[in-house]
Amino acid sequence: MKVMVLGADGYLGWPLSMKLANKYDYEVIGVDNFSRRERVREIGSDSALPIRSMDERIRAFEENFGKKIIFEEGDLRDYEFVEKIIKKYRPDVIVHFAEIPSAPYSMIDVHHAVETHENNVNGTLNLLFAMKEFSPEAHLIKLGTMGEYGTPNIDIPEGFFEIEYRGRKDVLPFPRQAGSFYHQTKVHDSNNIMLACKIWGLRSTDIMQGVVYGTRTDETAVDERLVTRFDFDEAFGTVINRFCAQAVIGHPLTPYGKGNQTRGFLNIMDTMRCIETIMRNPPKEGEYRVVNQLTEVLNINEIAEKVQNIGKELGLDPVIERIENPRVEAEEHYYNVDYKKLGEMGFRRKYTVDDSIRYMLEDLIPHKERIEKYKRHIIPKIKWREGLSE
Amino acid sequence: MKVMVLGADGYLGWPLSMKLANKYDYEVIGVDNFSRRERVREIGSDSALPIRSMDERIRAFEENFGKKIIFEEGDLRDYEFVEKIIKKYRPDVIVHFAEIPSAPYSMIDVHHAVETHENNVNGTLNLLFAMKEFSPEAHLIKLGTMGEYGTPNIDIPEGFFEIEYRGRKDVLPFPRQAGSFYHQTKVHDSNNIMLACKIWGLRSTDIMQGVVYGTRTDETAVDERLVTRFDFDEAFGTVINRFCAQAVIGHPLTPYGKGNQTRGFLNIMDTMRCIETIMRNPPKEGEYRVVNQLTEVLNINEIAEKVQNIGKELGLDPVIERIENPRVEAEEHYYNVDYKKLGEMGFRRKYTVDDSIRYMLEDLIPHKERIEKYKRHIIPKIKWREGLSE
Repeated sequence: MKVMVLGADGYLGWPLSMKLANKYDYEVIGVDNFSRRERVREIGSDSALPIRSMDERIRAFEENFGKKIIFEEGDLRDYEFVEKIIKKYRPDVIVHFAEIPSAPYSMIDVHHAVETHENNVNGTLNLLFAMKEFSPEAHLIKLGTMGEYGTPNIDIPEGFFEIEYRGRKDVLPFPRQAGSFYHQTKVHDSNNIMLACKIWGLRSTDIMQGVVYGTRTDETAVDERLVTRFDFDEAFGTVINRFCAQAVIGHPLTPYGKGNQTRGFLNIMDTMRCIETIMRNPPKEGEYRVVNQLTEVLNINEIAEKVQNIGKELGLDPVIERIENPRVEAEEHYYNVDYKKLGEMGFRRKYTVDDSIRYMLEDLIPHKERIEKYKRHIIPKIKWREGLSE
Repeated sequence: MKVMVLGADGYLGWPLSMKLANKYDYEVIGVDNFSRRERVREIGSDSALPIRSMDERIRAFEENFGKKIIFEEGDLRDYEFVEKIIKKYRPDVIVHFAEIPSAPYSMIDVHHAVETHENNVNGTLNLLFAMKEFSPEAHLIKLGTMGEYGTPNIDIPEGFFEIEYRGRKDVLPFPRQAGSFYHQTKVHDSNNIMLACKIWGLRSTDIMQGVVYGTRTDETAVDERLVTRFDFDEAFGTVINRFCAQAVIGHPLTPYGKGNQTRGFLNIMDTMRCIETIMRNPPKEGEYRVVNQLTEVLNINEIAEKVQNIGKELGLDPVIERIENPRVEAEEHYYNVDYKKLGEMGFRRKYTVDDSIRYMLEDLIPHKERIEKYKRHIIPKIKWREGLSE
């Protein structure tokens, strides 16, 4: 099996590339333009765990596991490039992680909102057209987000729902109410992919993913040259990772607003296993399938308390300090999400937030100085109403 | 009242600009980059009714009505330009027609799909950010399309619906199932505008418009230098207009596929009155309002028969010849649309398709030679599955 991983230099893309090459012996073609490294630098921050160049990563992977990863550098916004790689490799599976993944980044100003659209939406369009021409049978595994749904006052099904309205029934896409321009780009992608499957017979799994946390996977843990990035700044750091970084340097844990915002979460090692499960269970020709990918539902205050308690056991003693919410979002809301499809395909979660925080803190403590160095980028300066204020 | 009309050189934008300046004495600022003229030429066609340059149009309008229209040439994809005009005029109302309006054009190839996204989605994003900074009180009247909804098997409400799902209720955006990349850009716009209203308190009316037909308005009819464009090519011509052009040159009327596709329609003069009605009934701060704008629901076969019958009375005798459907769409489907909000605001339709076809044919007959000249661009060469084939 030939798998192309778009965004292979990223938090999920790099460990997934290793996992697929190591555990399954798949032929893995990684693709990236290294823009994530650049954008985190633009924010002024850096990965808490030091990461190596792609060349060094691939060399170290080969030394440790005796397996190869092919790599192509390029940008999905360039159709010529996309056409070239799809034509050259004709992959069986394309895992598409090559998007700007930050809500705050998209809210900095008009240029960042437009850039997020161009990168994510146009990049995906280029990919869809190249697939149609050169690999129409391939399974596109596209990373969306649970944030596409927003926080409706009814249960959230997996992508589609049957409803009765004025006495008639239909199965329709579940309404999306995304809360940032970044989240909107994922909704736009979902809509475009659904259309491409319908008119061209492509097959795709669109993953509505919860918030991923964790400092390691089986492969990243064996050699320091193989670690994956770990962001904790306001734009690219996600909540559990950010709280762990805060705890390590004695910074208060900072829920936004009331902290009762509820979300789905999953460990990065479970994420790897979810993607593998989806890969082994492809949709049929023309099928656009939506999977909700999460293993736990928690609110932000609960997470802060977990990090606080486990931090105390390690002698860190972090305080919790709620700060003004930079976002526009409901801070108290109903949240009941279906996540059955992955279970039906055979996935079982291995990790919980409780299991993970201790080893995450332990992994981060040796890099305390790096976190200290960039800590001024943790507290949000990007606000949904005003954009970036310094 | 200061009204900015984006896309003021277009089929609807030009007559609306005149109507608002003439009938209401509004201060009208027209904006366009003339890309529609260019894109129709790219297809190889031209307007059946000859149109003048913007300079000549404005001069002729002033001569006839003694009123001025201000004009600014520029492109909404250029944020500097958008910022400049919003800052300079700080309009009370912004009517946004400045989008590529063609489904087939967006399906030519990847470049046209991406270009339609860049023009429509990024242009609208630029506008939203400029409004937020410089005219947050303005009423944005945005042209969407009924095509955003697709053809669900349940009634289509106006933008939102209350549903019960697993025993809980919420009012949610009605699911969109757009059938081309062009239609998808309108869905993306709707989602982005909804977000901007929510987070920034902007106010907007998003018009889900039916298919507009007609050769004239009150103002275009008084001087040949004031006519608005009339496209009949496969990409920019819409169905009633295209059938009328076909009838005039003795070309068969060509429904796509079975011809039972059902859509909403309205006369261009009623369109003007709808927009005026919406303008006089602005939404409140932060409100994102969706209006379904149509006056009749018909299927394509019914329209072909109407054009055939009225054509016969004028000695034209067109035949009806169903051709292979270039699109991927349901050719038999349920279609029941709400369109009550405009009536509640005071709008009453003045024209039906039956009333209009005769004068449309009469208006087109003097331009028979122009239609003849470009007739090879009527039959579709752009196909949803294969793109453009020559």
